[in-house]
Amino acid sequence: MNLKQQEKYFHHLLETKDLKTLKSEAKDMNEADLAEILEDFNSHDSLLIFRMLPKDLSIEVFTYMTPSQQIQLVQSVTDKELQELLDDLFLDDRVDLLEEMPAGLVTKFLSKAPAEERKLLNQFLQYPEDSAGSLMTIEYVSLEPEMTVKEAMAYIKENGMKKETIYTCYVVDERKKLLGFVSLRDLVIADPYEKIEDIMLEDVVFVETTEDQEEIGDMFTKYGYLAFPVVDREHRLCGIITFDDIMEVLEDEATEDFHRMAAINPSDEDYMDETPMDLAKNRIPWLLILMISATVTGSIIHHFDTLIGEFIILTSFIPMITGTGGNTGSQSSTMVIRGLATGEIEWEDMLPVMWKEMRVGLIAGTFLAIVNFLRLVFLTSTSFTVALTVSLTILCTVILSKLLGAFLPITMARLGLDPALMAASFITTIIDSVVLIIYFSIAGMILLR
Amino acid sequence: MNLKQQEKYFHHLLETKDLKTLKSEAKDMNEADLAEILEDFNSHDSLLIFRMLPKDLSIEVFTYMTPSQQIQLVQSVTDKELQELLDDLFLDDRVDLLEEMPAGLVTKFLSKAPAEERKLLNQFLQYPEDSAGSLMTIEYVSLEPEMTVKEAMAYIKENGMKKETIYTCYVVDERKKLLGFVSLRDLVIADPYEKIEDIMLEDVVFVETTEDQEEIGDMFTKYGYLAFPVVDREHRLCGIITFDDIMEVLEDEATEDFHRMAAINPSDEDYMDETPMDLAKNRIPWLLILMISATVTGSIIHHFDTLIGEFIILTSFIPMITGTGGNTGSQSSTMVIRGLATGEIEWEDMLPVMWKEMRVGLIAGTFLAIVNFLRLVFLTSTSFTVALTVSLTILCTVILSKLLGAFLPITMARLGLDPALMAASFITTIIDSVVLIIYFSIAGMILLR
Repeated sequence: MNLKQQEKYFHHLLETKDLKTLKSEAKDMNEADLAEILEDFNSHDSLLIFRMLPKDLSIEVFTYMTPSQQIQLVQSVTDKELQELLDDLFLDDRVDLLEEMPAGLVTKFLSKAPAEERKLLNQFLQYPEDSAGSLMTIEYVSLEPEMTVKEAMAYIKENGMKKETIYTCYVVDERKKLLGFVSLRDLVIADPYEKIEDIMLEDVVFVETTEDQEEIGDMFTKYGYLAFPVVDREHRLCGIITFDDIMEVLEDEATEDFHRMAAINPSDEDYMDETPMDLAKNRIPWLLILMISATVTGSIIHHFDTLIGEFIILTSFIPMITGTGGNTGSQSSTMVIRGLATGEIEWEDMLPVMWKEMRVGLIAGTFLAIVNFLRLVFLTSTSFTVALTVSLTILCTVILSKLLGAFLPITMARLGLDPALMAASFITTIIDSVVLIIYFSIAGMILLR
Repeated sequence: MNLKQQEKYFHHLLETKDLKTLKSEAKDMNEADLAEILEDFNSHDSLLIFRMLPKDLSIEVFTYMTPSQQIQLVQSVTDKELQELLDDLFLDDRVDLLEEMPAGLVTKFLSKAPAEERKLLNQFLQYPEDSAGSLMTIEYVSLEPEMTVKEAMAYIKENGMKKETIYTCYVVDERKKLLGFVSLRDLVIADPYEKIEDIMLEDVVFVETTEDQEEIGDMFTKYGYLAFPVVDREHRLCGIITFDDIMEVLEDEATEDFHRMAAINPSDEDYMDETPMDLAKNRIPWLLILMISATVTGSIIHHFDTLIGEFIILTSFIPMITGTGGNTGSQSSTMVIRGLATGEIEWEDMLPVMWKEMRVGLIAGTFLAIVNFLRLVFLTSTSFTVALTVSLTILCTVILSKLLGAFLPITMARLGLDPALMAASFITTIIDSVVLIIYFSIAGMILLR
């Protein structure tokens, strides 16, 4: 049975009130699949199924739910159930949930939590959103340098169930300073009587609590590690970030780039959960800025009124020329923006990239100009001079758009701004103006001779 | 010392021929960092440093290099060194390298490999590129159901060094059929005399050898597992895919989407490694298609020549109107394309999405139309009728572009085509035509009354 069929089957079981079968079916399912299925049930039915699950499974399913699913569930369970649920979550999941929950519920929950825990949670809630501090968990295994491998294994056996990962264990001194790490693989393979300090690796790659999640995502991609330790300014171990927490971050960061490149203010919400008003709010500002910037192109055209009045035919090529400029420019800017995001392109590469784009522009521009010229002269009734004007404009347009498409994003990045802002929409508006000036200047030179 | 400083220091040590210090510095470095630094040395120096590294480290560094770095290195080492290097790589890395290597080198290497190994490598090289088969490795731990935990641990201790991961172990019967899995964590915590079949989990999420890497990437994001088993059609275990192999895939897939959305044919090469001619080849086809499609807009404008001749002022609003249409449409199409890619939006969501986009269009369109109308009437000398024409066009444009931006990508996906093709560039060209017809029709109705 695939997921869709399973979902239909669950609906059927609910309708026929065969809750016993439902319960036994659900308990054997994968937690991620269950969370996905529950998303399509109404809140009443979804709570009903959720309550049927064995305790351990229900916690797992909960952590796989989307934030909006979680909030909906949290708001429908009893206070006692909520308390139990929260107690069983790993600290990082608990913090995530508290960050999403309505303020009233958070206060209520925190007021009931033991003092020690309240202090800890408050501290976590204070880390900036999207920082290592807010992503990390404190459920890690820490070992002492003097332990033997055997002692370490016994310690892990005793405490491992409560830890988010036991595959990378961190070695700290008595003041919690991070000394090194040892993988469970090394522990399993090592001689039981060796000392941890003799087998640990001291070359630890770590992040600081204030590090931004985008950087951390890049580190996971670069190093391919399971987890990174998070340290404070005194190099004391505060927590760890595991790879499964970062998979979503990587996806979210890419989504953010996609949206910003399409001139949408990024939002943390899922598309399907947002109201039309929220969506409109994220989109209107840029549309407005771009619409008003486009008046520049309007006044450029206005400026050449006399020329256009004489040669109305020039008007009909405007969309093709600005379109080609926009497309060419956004090809280059997209390549460069993505290269900057993955770390392949840096400020130092400015000149080589510009040089490369210029050559690409020369090749592509010449090709397009020739095709365009032949098409206009042989397939349409366009005059030779107009065809020449349009084709020369295309050549200049393509080269210039390629250069701007490379130059602007790298410059933005250098200024500490997000290069994604220089993507398709924005760059198109800039290129439109430049290209129209070129077009009418060439037209003036050729046609008014 | 950060990486840049380290790199400069290495350059300095090479210049002063202090190879001893260089050697001792390099051997303590992280393998991913070393690979990154070596990228900026010329092939002679990079080989020199590479040869100084202890054997184990040099293999690690090699796996972190980019394909073009690897090929360069492979072509400069001696045959004997190449043989040793290849022997020490895990099978999946070896297959990756062979796939990238020039055909001559591959044949030479394969002819020297033992028959058994040659057969295996040939089999791997036959899996379609980007399929689970070509990504997987065969260095996994497989256990038998009748083993005790203690026996399993002894087996892992014995064989673990040669395996890509030991954190997830797979349980197979005598015919290699996949029965279940057990994590090293469970093994460590379990009673030593329990049987594997009693503690293993039977609900294994697996992939088939033919599965595409994009799907596999989504599964890692969804389930958050360390590894997935790969099975053939008879459900026999063929290999495993680990999360570190997929991190790069996820990045590459996102890059591919970015490029396709900017109307660039995706390429496997890194930007900095491609020649201007290659880059131009990936970009020209779409530029050409888009340029020629734009003649439709040209003939629409041509069709309204008389109207334009009478009201030349209409011309100056063309870029603003088509620009706003393009930007609005690409906002919607980007959101929808990304939603389709992350699995949030499906074919079934077509109507809700269209309905949502229509309301967003109504809100944003009304707002933009009003701002535009007020600006034209009060801040410029535009006549009331022209301002009305332009503003009404903007309202219709925004609503229509939102609808098309949602409709086209979902339809593409439904037809089994890549929805990313319906991104900014392409959708802009379609919207341009539609919007110009609306513009001139409204203008005709209002101005020619």
